[in-house]
Amino acid sequence: MARVVVDVMLKPEILDPQGKAVAQALPRLGFDGISGVRQGKRFELDVEGEVSEERLAQIRSAAETLLSNPVIEDFTVHVDDPR
Amino acid sequence: MARVVVDVMLKPEILDPQGKAVAQALPRLGFDGISGVRQGKRFELDVEGEVSEERLAQIRSAAETLLSNPVIEDFTVHVDDPR
Amino acid sequence: MARVVVDVMLKPEILDPQGKAVAQALPRLGFDGISGVRQGKRFELDVEGEVSEERLAQIRSAAETLLSNPVIEDFTVHVDDPR
Amino acid sequence: MARVVVDVMLKPEILDPQGKAVAQALPRLGFDGISGVRQGKRFELDVEGEVSEERLAQIRSAAETLLSNPVIEDFTVHVDDPR
Repeated sequence: MARVVVDVMLKPEILDPQGKAVAQALPRLGFDGISGVRQGKRFELDVEGEVSEERLAQIRSAAETLLSNPVIEDFTVHVDDPR
Repeated sequence: MARVVVDVMLKPEILDPQGKAVAQALPRLGFDGISGVRQGKRFELDVEGEVSEERLAQIRSAAETLLSNPVIEDFTVHVDDPR
Repeated sequence: MARVVVDVMLKPEILDPQGKAVAQALPRLGFDGISGVRQGKRFELDVEGEVSEERLAQIRSAAETLLSNPVIEDFTVHVDDPR
Repeated sequence: MARVVVDVMLKPEILDPQGKAVAQALPRLGFDGISGVRQGKRFELDVEGEVSEERLAQIRSAAETLLSNPVIEDFTVHVDDPR
């Protein structure tokens, strides 16, 4: 079984209050040197069988339809490297 | 400026209803062959200057304190490859 | 058509890093007097027809199965008052 | 101590893939009669002292700045009724 990862982030021009809260909180906890934080979603999909090009295209289509809102979010799809 | 990514996922033994909803919805939209979905959080941190080992250790500490709940979640930290 | 709301919050004993980040960030933005913040999920369900007791029981069951993880989260269900 | 709740939902005209996934998954699990689902965020704020009008105004300002993105989200603020 293979794993495919879909990362979904708000588009850069869309303000991200969640990330902003984290960025503001970091210095209060003693963490400096972080100039910005963005928070998004990560989906890990367990794929039966091989991850063919056709399968990846299907997952990209699912990412566009069900995992993200393309008006406000960008997504990337990649096969997870076994670590 | 460098970017460091912190991925936060529920531990494998913790039920993930959000991922389950996505997994259940996929076949209805014509996407087959996905046997499981997990939904987590992805944080992108913009780091000033170089990403030293010390800086990475600090970010791991922040991930443990502010970005995740170690009782129910696992996290990974990596420097983002420029794409 | 009626609307039923399902609120899902982490159980009080489960640390909530998202809420903590917000709580830490508030004073930096000049907001004082908030001693704690918890962040949860709110689902708004559009229900066809009348919201009978049977329908509410069904929604509670769905909340337990698909909208929350009862091991780490609590939920409440209520019919939304028209405002 | 009082509790103030801030509910944040995507504006009605913004597509909500998370809610859509839940709506698609419900029938597969045997739950019918739900014509739509929207997923948002719920923040519970513990407020020191009394919840004055001034305090509520401050929280509305925080909701606009740190808890929501007014371009894509609406929020409501209310004092939580003790249940």
